[in-house]
Amino acid sequence: MTYCVGLLVRNGLVVIADTRTNAGLDNIATFKKLHLFERPGERVITVATAGNLGISQSVINLLQEGMEHPETGEVETIFSFPTMFKVAQFVGRAIREVYRLHGKAMEHSQASFDVTLLVAGQVKGGRLRLFMVYSAGNFIEATADTPYLQIGEHKYGKPILDRAVTFDTDLPEALKLGLISMDSTIRSNLGVGMPIDIAVIRRDGITVEIAHRIDRTDGYFLDLRERWSAALRAAHQAIPAPPYGLPAATPLN
Amino acid sequence: MTYCVGLLVRNGLVVIADTRTNAGLDNIATFKKLHLFERPGERVITVATAGNLGISQSVINLLQEGMEHPETGEVETIFSFPTMFKVAQFVGRAIREVYRLHGKAMEHSQASFDVTLLVAGQVKGGRLRLFMVYSAGNFIEATADTPYLQIGEHKYGKPILDRAVTFDTDLPEALKLGLISMDSTIRSNLGVGMPIDIAVIRRDGITVEIAHRIDRTDGYFLDLRERWSAALRAAHQAIPAPPYGLPAATPLN
Repeated sequence: MTYCVGLLVRNGLVVIADTRTNAGLDNIATFKKLHLFERPGERVITVATAGNLGISQSVINLLQEGMEHPETGEVETIFSFPTMFKVAQFVGRAIREVYRLHGKAMEHSQASFDVTLLVAGQVKGGRLRLFMVYSAGNFIEATADTPYLQIGEHKYGKPILDRAVTFDTDLPEALKLGLISMDSTIRSNLGVGMPIDIAVIRRDGITVEIAHRIDRTDGYFLDLRERWSAALRAAHQAIPAPPYGLPAATPLN
Repeated sequence: MTYCVGLLVRNGLVVIADTRTNAGLDNIATFKKLHLFERPGERVITVATAGNLGISQSVINLLQEGMEHPETGEVETIFSFPTMFKVAQFVGRAIREVYRLHGKAMEHSQASFDVTLLVAGQVKGGRLRLFMVYSAGNFIEATADTPYLQIGEHKYGKPILDRAVTFDTDLPEALKLGLISMDSTIRSNLGVGMPIDIAVIRRDGITVEIAHRIDRTDGYFLDLRERWSAALRAAHQAIPAPPYGLPAATPLN
């Protein structure tokens, strides 16, 4: 399992990914799922992956090593494209190339061709954008109405985002909310685990402002978990007791 | 979709169920999913249902109208059994009877035989117990280690339960936490909706202490939602900003 979330707010972008992979509960490992492609001042792109690790690693390799353009024969990499839209299309092409190589054989051995990616960043002269690319290579984009996208185990960490994140959320606040969302997911799904990789990109900065791995001993994250738990406890304790009694006249059954 | 949760704490039992059913997003209706079977002083049983409405309504009818005992031929209802364990077994038998009548034909028309029930309550002289009965008719029971069980769309409302509910949680607090869990689910899944039915049974009371329907105009629930949202906002705003910067020596990719 996996949990990755991208938050695109007015001032920039936050991408957070866990690092746990598992093939069954008895085969757990740590793999990086958050990848950075950066040429400061020219482009900065993050790609976070969920789904089959073999597929996602192959896709990342194709983005770096490049693929031949179907007509010109020229080798193109993730650094070749002038806009984020074209980068998202290229990522989709890479997924379809991996499907061409392995898809049929995987399906033959009952392994579903399952991969989803968050592709986000900015190319100089263009906008900061956040896309979710599906296993068919098609994609959607986050907008001001829905400024975050999740891949993998998204449900446990969604309520806090639904409540708190808007396009006008401040960048450090967006990072904080993403970490709270990750914490809720880690608590409820064994398949999502530490360490956590984070990337923060300020709009029009065209560089990675923060790239950091949060491990089990990270003081800030431990403190965030503790404060959040304590605040939730205080919050539900402060709500008055329910006033309901048994209305004899309206039996439920 | 559906969300029902049962919480079994030291002082009693809380069961909460939404009332929305849908056959596709364009066919939404309100149906009761929380059913009470009560003879005060003798037994009190709640049954909450998730899954195919045709199956769950048939099961509820069989529990009320009864089924013949396979050997004695005697008609038994949910009121016939001396222990909650035997009640849970009976509910399982009712599910298998519905499967016998409709299962093959449903599978033939690609409708999966999908139903899950929370069966909880107390028969005089026995313990207050909470079971989850699966579509095969087998079941598990909540214990002091894991004092709550959920059916239907369980993920959005699970984090608050994971954090806050223990066997020693007070009964009104358990109701409050169940309502917060329901609120989180309603916010994130359109298939779960108001009104909400609640039942509260005090241990050894052998009667329903609270049976109530919470509708959209319910002042307490509106206040709980507002307080909870405000408290979450205050909670994440009170957490300090993340201290992370870009460590130039450890690039992420």
